[in-house]
Amino acid sequence: MTTTGTPLITSSTDALDSLFSPQAIAIVGASGRQSNLFARPLQYLTAFGYKGAIYPINPGYESLHGVACYPDVDALPGPIDLALVLIPAARAISLLPAIARAGAKVAVIFASGFSETGEEGQALQTKLTSVAAQHGIRLIGPNCQGALNTATHFYGTFTGALEVGPLTPGGLTYVGQSGAVGGSILSLARERGIGIASWISTGNQADLKTVEIARYLIEQDATTTLAMYIESATGEREFLDLATRAQELGKSLIVLRSATSEAGARAAASHTGAIVGSAAAFNAVVREYGVVLADDIDELVELAHVHTTLPRAHGPAVAIVTTSGGVGSLAADLADSRGLDVVQLSEQAQNELAAMIPAYGATENPIDVTAQVFNGKDVTEFISVCKLTAALPEVDVVLVALTLIIGDQAEKAATALAGLIALSDKPIVVAWCAAHAQTTAARHALRDAGFPVFDSVGSATLALRSLVSDNSTITPNAPSTPTTADDFAALIDQYVEVVTEAAAAPLMDGLGIPRPTTHLITDLQQAEDLAATRSTPAVLKIQSPNVLHKTDRGGVLVGIEPADLPRRTAQLLAMFAGDQPEGVLIQDLVGDGIELIVGVTRSGDHGLPLITVGLGGTATELYRDTATTFAPVDRKQAKTLLLRTRAAALLTGYRSTPAYDLDAVAEAIAQISQLAVVAGDRLREVEVNPLRVTHDPHRPVQALDFMMILAPKAGA
Amino acid sequence: MTTTGTPLITSSTDALDSLFSPQAIAIVGASGRQSNLFARPLQYLTAFGYKGAIYPINPGYESLHGVACYPDVDALPGPIDLALVLIPAARAISLLPAIARAGAKVAVIFASGFSETGEEGQALQTKLTSVAAQHGIRLIGPNCQGALNTATHFYGTFTGALEVGPLTPGGLTYVGQSGAVGGSILSLARERGIGIASWISTGNQADLKTVEIARYLIEQDATTTLAMYIESATGEREFLDLATRAQELGKSLIVLRSATSEAGARAAASHTGAIVGSAAAFNAVVREYGVVLADDIDELVELAHVHTTLPRAHGPAVAIVTTSGGVGSLAADLADSRGLDVVQLSEQAQNELAAMIPAYGATENPIDVTAQVFNGKDVTEFISVCKLTAALPEVDVVLVALTLIIGDQAEKAATALAGLIALSDKPIVVAWCAAHAQTTAARHALRDAGFPVFDSVGSATLALRSLVSDNSTITPNAPSTPTTADDFAALIDQYVEVVTEAAAAPLMDGLGIPRPTTHLITDLQQAEDLAATRSTPAVLKIQSPNVLHKTDRGGVLVGIEPADLPRRTAQLLAMFAGDQPEGVLIQDLVGDGIELIVGVTRSGDHGLPLITVGLGGTATELYRDTATTFAPVDRKQAKTLLLRTRAAALLTGYRSTPAYDLDAVAEAIAQISQLAVVAGDRLREVEVNPLRVTHDPHRPVQALDFMMILAPKAGA
Repeated sequence: MTTTGTPLITSSTDALDSLFSPQAIAIVGASGRQSNLFARPLQYLTAFGYKGAIYPINPGYESLHGVACYPDVDALPGPIDLALVLIPAARAISLLPAIARAGAKVAVIFASGFSETGEEGQALQTKLTSVAAQHGIRLIGPNCQGALNTATHFYGTFTGALEVGPLTPGGLTYVGQSGAVGGSILSLARERGIGIASWISTGNQADLKTVEIARYLIEQDATTTLAMYIESATGEREFLDLATRAQELGKSLIVLRSATSEAGARAAASHTGAIVGSAAAFNAVVREYGVVLADDIDELVELAHVHTTLPRAHGPAVAIVTTSGGVGSLAADLADSRGLDVVQLSEQAQNELAAMIPAYGATENPIDVTAQVFNGKDVTEFISVCKLTAALPEVDVVLVALTLIIGDQAEKAATALAGLIALSDKPIVVAWCAAHAQTTAARHALRDAGFPVFDSVGSATLALRSLVSDNSTITPNAPSTPTTADDFAALIDQYVEVVTEAAAAPLMDGLGIPRPTTHLITDLQQAEDLAATRSTPAVLKIQSPNVLHKTDRGGVLVGIEPADLPRRTAQLLAMFAGDQPEGVLIQDLVGDGIELIVGVTRSGDHGLPLITVGLGGTATELYRDTATTFAPVDRKQAKTLLLRTRAAALLTGYRSTPAYDLDAVAEAIAQISQLAVVAGDRLREVEVNPLRVTHDPHRPVQALDFMMILAPKAGA
Repeated sequence: MTTTGTPLITSSTDALDSLFSPQAIAIVGASGRQSNLFARPLQYLTAFGYKGAIYPINPGYESLHGVACYPDVDALPGPIDLALVLIPAARAISLLPAIARAGAKVAVIFASGFSETGEEGQALQTKLTSVAAQHGIRLIGPNCQGALNTATHFYGTFTGALEVGPLTPGGLTYVGQSGAVGGSILSLARERGIGIASWISTGNQADLKTVEIARYLIEQDATTTLAMYIESATGEREFLDLATRAQELGKSLIVLRSATSEAGARAAASHTGAIVGSAAAFNAVVREYGVVLADDIDELVELAHVHTTLPRAHGPAVAIVTTSGGVGSLAADLADSRGLDVVQLSEQAQNELAAMIPAYGATENPIDVTAQVFNGKDVTEFISVCKLTAALPEVDVVLVALTLIIGDQAEKAATALAGLIALSDKPIVVAWCAAHAQTTAARHALRDAGFPVFDSVGSATLALRSLVSDNSTITPNAPSTPTTADDFAALIDQYVEVVTEAAAAPLMDGLGIPRPTTHLITDLQQAEDLAATRSTPAVLKIQSPNVLHKTDRGGVLVGIEPADLPRRTAQLLAMFAGDQPEGVLIQDLVGDGIELIVGVTRSGDHGLPLITVGLGGTATELYRDTATTFAPVDRKQAKTLLLRTRAAALLTGYRSTPAYDLDAVAEAIAQISQLAVVAGDRLREVEVNPLRVTHDPHRPVQALDFMMILAPKAGA
């Protein structure tokens, strides 16, 4: 990107202020043909109450939709801060200088024909960004559907979702590359009565990208819930920053992600490096910052609905109020499988409920009021049950699961429920298992009050669950460098790239990573001297930065008797002579126990440092029983991380085996995680495999093998 | 149940013939109050065209709905074959003799107040069944919502789902205890345009039960897809019989099951016996007979829709035709995650597609036609793409994933799609990610042609996947007793209950189950004799029917040198003197390798014999990596079973480890599975743990430990 001369580089904040709250808009290539998609932005802006200046540019018309038309950008009567560019790719570029002259800080390029079409289009796109940068203009698109902001009545988009009228303002903001997915979301949100704050499709995002824009929009007061559709790899630090800010602001961040990269990770080879693929940092952000994941478009909309309209849950305890024992049983199973806790109700609560429920109903949770309570009576009893249930101290969230409750009684119940939901400080959701046609009025009563009605108990329980905060998150430590880093700077500085266990020994000892006694032997005499002093068998390991997989290559010998040490050492040195070995590491044998694997990685050059723990061997390789979070971790965090694996059951006292020293294991993991700090930006990968855990009270945990890979030194 | 005197026991087939195609019906307690639920059966029968005789019985009315009313059952002018009994529990019982005298073979008892209300109600229910049996009447209910059959216009139910009119006849039949779940299903099915064959709610099912009724209805020509909601434990053999018959008839069996029992199984302790809990046989039937499982009510209806209207798929290869790259990517991920194969299209196919698709679309699968093809043109190109795609030999199923395609073009596309779907011999489904209000006409066009429109790509891919037959099913062997059983009858006969490895030795050898050399030592002299002949360390195991968990109790010693044999044998015998040991088993040590666990079980006294294989140790206990099917299996089936575990990767050549002799392992498993035949009805549990697999070509697999539990002999 060249920046010849022109000094005015518009900040993304300025550009996005101009985009979402423009004072004056040029619509370059506004179409006069009603059926043309590119006629829509002008139609929408004029019809939906945009108050700023609109300058359609089309030499073929005097005016369009009652707005004066201009032949070209230079002919505009006043300055603009935004240009909606609806002309083909090549011409769009040639108009950027004029658009800049007119004062625009940002241009939305709608045209396709750029990078999505192949090499030629890619070149065109590079030119587009280059020209825009030269003229200080920030870009949305190309190949996008534009943006809108209900507060400013700005509708700079051609999405078909607005053909039926403007949107109801509300708390939901959408940010995604895909305008089609965004259009579906708008359409479904409107149908459900979800209010919208703002919306943007970034298309090829040659300049401004989804996460950066989301970071801007999360700050806007109008946005209470931000929904994203993420197609491609996303800057991890930017996503982390977004998620952190959303959490600070108490706003919900809901993400629908094309799972391609995760499917890739699943298919990849199963060593730590592969498991902690590019999806790992994303998943760690999701896990530790309470990001809500959606699997599908309709699910995203349903989750957005509860997040924009209901309070967060204080805990996972769900009470189910239902009109059918069958549906109640199903709802309980689905709630349980999604991590809600179908709590037992107190005896007192059950006694109170019993007074309102027929004998063949149930006062246990699920509470079956039976369809009978709707039979020819008012809905007082039903609502009383719901109200009493929501007020119970043992209940955090309420699911009202209705079957074929239809007609007048249904509408009355819905209206009363809407009143209850609005007043409740606990989330209450309704699942209505009946045709829409038979429950139209009832659904509208809830919808018009702003509340969701789910078509299935499954989706209702999923949405409720998303309102429960996970209380086992690991809040990452401040990313500042701890004091220990300085102590090791000189040591790190002398490492080239691959660091063997022998070379890392002073580092491990300095950090207090427990390990067995070792000796590095470089010649036969040393081997003979050592043999003379030993009485127990040893492990011999070739040490060379050129031998990454020493076990696979026969570079590890186990259970070598002292007398055999010299011969076997010589044998290893000869075998790996071509690999410039540092020597052979002689290590004490360690007693049986459990083998963990601990990895510290950074995905990509500027990725976030992560730590992964898991049970070694087949558990890691076949069952992917690992847990990952941001490195470094302290001892408490390390324990939380470890307890996320199923393998933790082996450590905490499994069947007849006594518990291992979990604190010591956590401490060792925390010490290993410090390597992320010590290695700093040069960190690529650390693997301790195995970290052996034994019942020996003096040496409860030891790193039996170690390998570290650093990025080459800057300038090296 | 007493059968005093009356000889006429109505067969369930006769009863169900009378229920679903009655010639004359008495409605005992037909209500004259319009708002009363119990007024509905008469309303429905008269309004919806039932042609047989209807005799409402209510002393308070001369006629109801234009039908002559009778004061009591004995006053009827002609015989009946069915009584719909709408009066309270206690009175219902007292009327059964009169109902029987009137000729009824079956009575539907709608009233609640029976077993669901507690002890008193249970007593009442017992009395009900007893009286019914005495009078040769079969029962539906009590506490049920009745039944219907569209072919005979029989609507003997009070479900609110019929308040909007009779049902459209079609292929879907519902059988379940829950009338509420059944009502929701009817309501949702009607809205989607799914035709119904028959429907029944069995309530407390004091007599006729869901599986038995489903077995009857699956034989009816009108039923092409049978949907069940199963709440409680189901007879395994009956369910197996139903699934087998459904498969023979080429009809779909779709089951929504309250997962309570599976959640229970998950929570249970993790030894084989617990893993193969009561859900195991059910799951084996589902797996081997292509039963389709649904997780929720709406999912059941969606699955039923594709099964009643679309052909089965020849394979899992899916092509996705979409109007959005974003939705295409999402659809591909969801299809992949559900087991469909997003195939690569041939170059020729892509070239042909390229002629119909804009340059910024995509001809790779997912095929992105772009929303542009709907822009102001006809839908010819879009339909041509769909048609060409469906005709491709590499494609088995097609998903058409539409975004905000709305208005006239949408309706045209839908009409053309309906025509294409109707003519295609491959399943084609449409997912439309847009508000119903914006796509009403289009949805109706597909609905009226009988075809589903999914609201999400996720549910569409799930439904498509359910049309693909699993080609790795294990067809159970004929349950006949093989010839080997006779040879072992005498041996089995002499076993009491717990059979130790030593006692089972002749059985294992007879069946050819490979095992290491063993000697049973019962006194010190034998131990000394054996010690003199041995040169290698041995394993010592106490043998006693009273010591089930011998390792936990310290009854297994590993690596005992010959010289130590006598002392250690004596030690074991002394330690377990109170357990009446049979002796100590001295076993050769076997080389390292992989340890499998093989269990043969029968859940419950009359359960089906099952075989479970898995990786031993933590893999089985923590990760539940096991596979279960019906026992016995042959070698080929055993291999298929083994390959269902993730642990199979360890056997087939994992990383640098060479492959093990899979055929030998499969053979050993097949031989172990023969114990299900040999032990016959007395089988309770066999556990081979571990089955050690090694690289020794002469002894590639050996059963290192064995335990069998039999039911006590009949009469013992």
